[in-house]
Amino acid sequence: MVLPGITQIREAIDAELLEFTKARSSELNAIDSELAPVAKALSDFVTDGGKRFRPIFAYLGYLGPGSTPNQNFLKACAALELVHVCALIHDDVMDGSDSRRNKPALHKHFEDLHKKNSYKGEPSKFGVAAAILLGDLALSWSDQMISESGISNLDASRAAPIFHEMRAELMAGQYLDVLEGSIAKFDLERSRKIARYKSGKYSIERPLQFGASLAGESKELHKVFSNYGLPLGEAFQLRDDILGVFGDSAITGKPSGDDIREGKRTVLMALTASRLSAADHSTLTAALGNPNLDSSQVAQIQQLVKDSGALDQCEALIEQLLNEALNSLKHPALDAEVTTKLNEMAVAATKRKS
Amino acid sequence: MVLPGITQIREAIDAELLEFTKARSSELNAIDSELAPVAKALSDFVTDGGKRFRPIFAYLGYLGPGSTPNQNFLKACAALELVHVCALIHDDVMDGSDSRRNKPALHKHFEDLHKKNSYKGEPSKFGVAAAILLGDLALSWSDQMISESGISNLDASRAAPIFHEMRAELMAGQYLDVLEGSIAKFDLERSRKIARYKSGKYSIERPLQFGASLAGESKELHKVFSNYGLPLGEAFQLRDDILGVFGDSAITGKPSGDDIREGKRTVLMALTASRLSAADHSTLTAALGNPNLDSSQVAQIQQLVKDSGALDQCEALIEQLLNEALNSLKHPALDAEVTTKLNEMAVAATKRKS
Repeated sequence: MVLPGITQIREAIDAELLEFTKARSSELNAIDSELAPVAKALSDFVTDGGKRFRPIFAYLGYLGPGSTPNQNFLKACAALELVHVCALIHDDVMDGSDSRRNKPALHKHFEDLHKKNSYKGEPSKFGVAAAILLGDLALSWSDQMISESGISNLDASRAAPIFHEMRAELMAGQYLDVLEGSIAKFDLERSRKIARYKSGKYSIERPLQFGASLAGESKELHKVFSNYGLPLGEAFQLRDDILGVFGDSAITGKPSGDDIREGKRTVLMALTASRLSAADHSTLTAALGNPNLDSSQVAQIQQLVKDSGALDQCEALIEQLLNEALNSLKHPALDAEVTTKLNEMAVAATKRKS
Repeated sequence: MVLPGITQIREAIDAELLEFTKARSSELNAIDSELAPVAKALSDFVTDGGKRFRPIFAYLGYLGPGSTPNQNFLKACAALELVHVCALIHDDVMDGSDSRRNKPALHKHFEDLHKKNSYKGEPSKFGVAAAILLGDLALSWSDQMISESGISNLDASRAAPIFHEMRAELMAGQYLDVLEGSIAKFDLERSRKIARYKSGKYSIERPLQFGASLAGESKELHKVFSNYGLPLGEAFQLRDDILGVFGDSAITGKPSGDDIREGKRTVLMALTASRLSAADHSTLTAALGNPNLDSSQVAQIQQLVKDSGALDQCEALIEQLLNEALNSLKHPALDAEVTTKLNEMAVAATKRKS
């Protein structure tokens, strides 16, 4: 069977998300006209960009055992994007990040709405409240989209345990990430563990297993997807670490060096720290978490990371993890075409520029 | 059939919530020992107090058509409490409320943890991040608890549309509430509409309909539950308004006059404003939303509300709405014993002191 290409799958997911958010927007507008900005902001956020990695992985997981392409299952897989939308909206609130995809973050958007309308009270407080609620709404929508996808109750119930595990692991990973930034030590093993939860499990392994469970496939493919997803997820996160320090803001949609200002304790930073002299180590520690760093100070840290050899080491680690992931795909239980597509996804996830 | 009493139902719900959160806590602790404070804080929040109005209403909705008491259905109904836990945790973040049930609010609890451990960064930022994530986790758990309750997929799928509607209406109602506080006008009709969404629908009508849908009952009882739930919910919210201004902090667990300091645009405040002289109106407007009001200033506003006659009017309105709710229960489709219990619940919801 000839399966649709990744781009086609992505476009089909986009179309499903558009249709779903349109229906939800009408309902919100029917409750009260004052909800129009909520409906519009959340729909725009969902439909405007996004790489759709998790829904694509989920759908490839569904196709993995050789299943026939199916619009309803694709819809159920697209629902994972709504979990991610919640995570992104709430993450920006927690980090105090003001922009996302070159546009104001959602809490900023509502802060601006408050100012424009000269409402009473703190604009930033209003923005945060709106963003918390919209994230909650997106999280609720994720269930709704699965349950209205048209797949049978039995099929949905098979994937439910993975779906619940995935969301709990996401929240757990996020908490550990915030905690790590607060403990503010360089701990390579901890950073790798968090990368495993935040990306390996949440972004790749669980979506693939979610899809496979929808298709009724459990034991064998689940193991293949773990062996593929965990190293690839770590590689994905390492790429994120690199982009968070060296990324081109015009492509990432985030200010360059954002991770330095936020003081993220990433694997890249742990590798760097372990390779620095005492003096350079102090420079790094002082810069991490300083929100007021200017571009020359950011450039200084970028240079430190490069000169220490940590950047090269990180790239080598990505390469090694990528190969590990690709090797794990050589398994008879996995459809040959899906194998090719998962190869493609692995390369896209680790070579990306945003 | 002799049905269990409200107290028995509440205790059974408590037991189910305890068991569910214990299982989730073990899972979190298995992911990482650093998650122990998360597991403990969220379990404590879920199991420590709470009136369990929504699960009780849901279970009474299930029993409404004459269903046999059933532990699995009770478990599914108990899941509604987890939605409420998310709403409370996030609400305290949005309002900046520092206490809940005479204990630190969850974001305060994690702020304190940050201070105690001398972590790096802003303690309040850490507290807010933890509370956002724990609320998200509770919201995810609500689905999981339904899906693991042991009821059939078919039964669960029947109640799913109501469950999704309920959560969307909750978020919508919360947003309108925040917006109303920011627009900061006195608008009786708007305030009543928000009360209808926040309490009528979310706390009573939808839980009852959720339960009835679990039992396979749709059209007829749904209408009865709307006619009961909407006026009762409004009465419930009016009681909240009164407690928010006059409540005894030792019983409510919130500082007395908290709604005044937060500047909530409640029905009680709209009624008061419409009855004041220009001078008193200015006093009220200046006080609403001032976080630094001392107890004598709070007492002055309490006096204004009383002297204006708004408190009496609000009590009369509660009485009228309560009677409307009770009258709607006289319907042949509703089990006689359940009718008695819904009478009892209506009185409890409107005469409560916390």
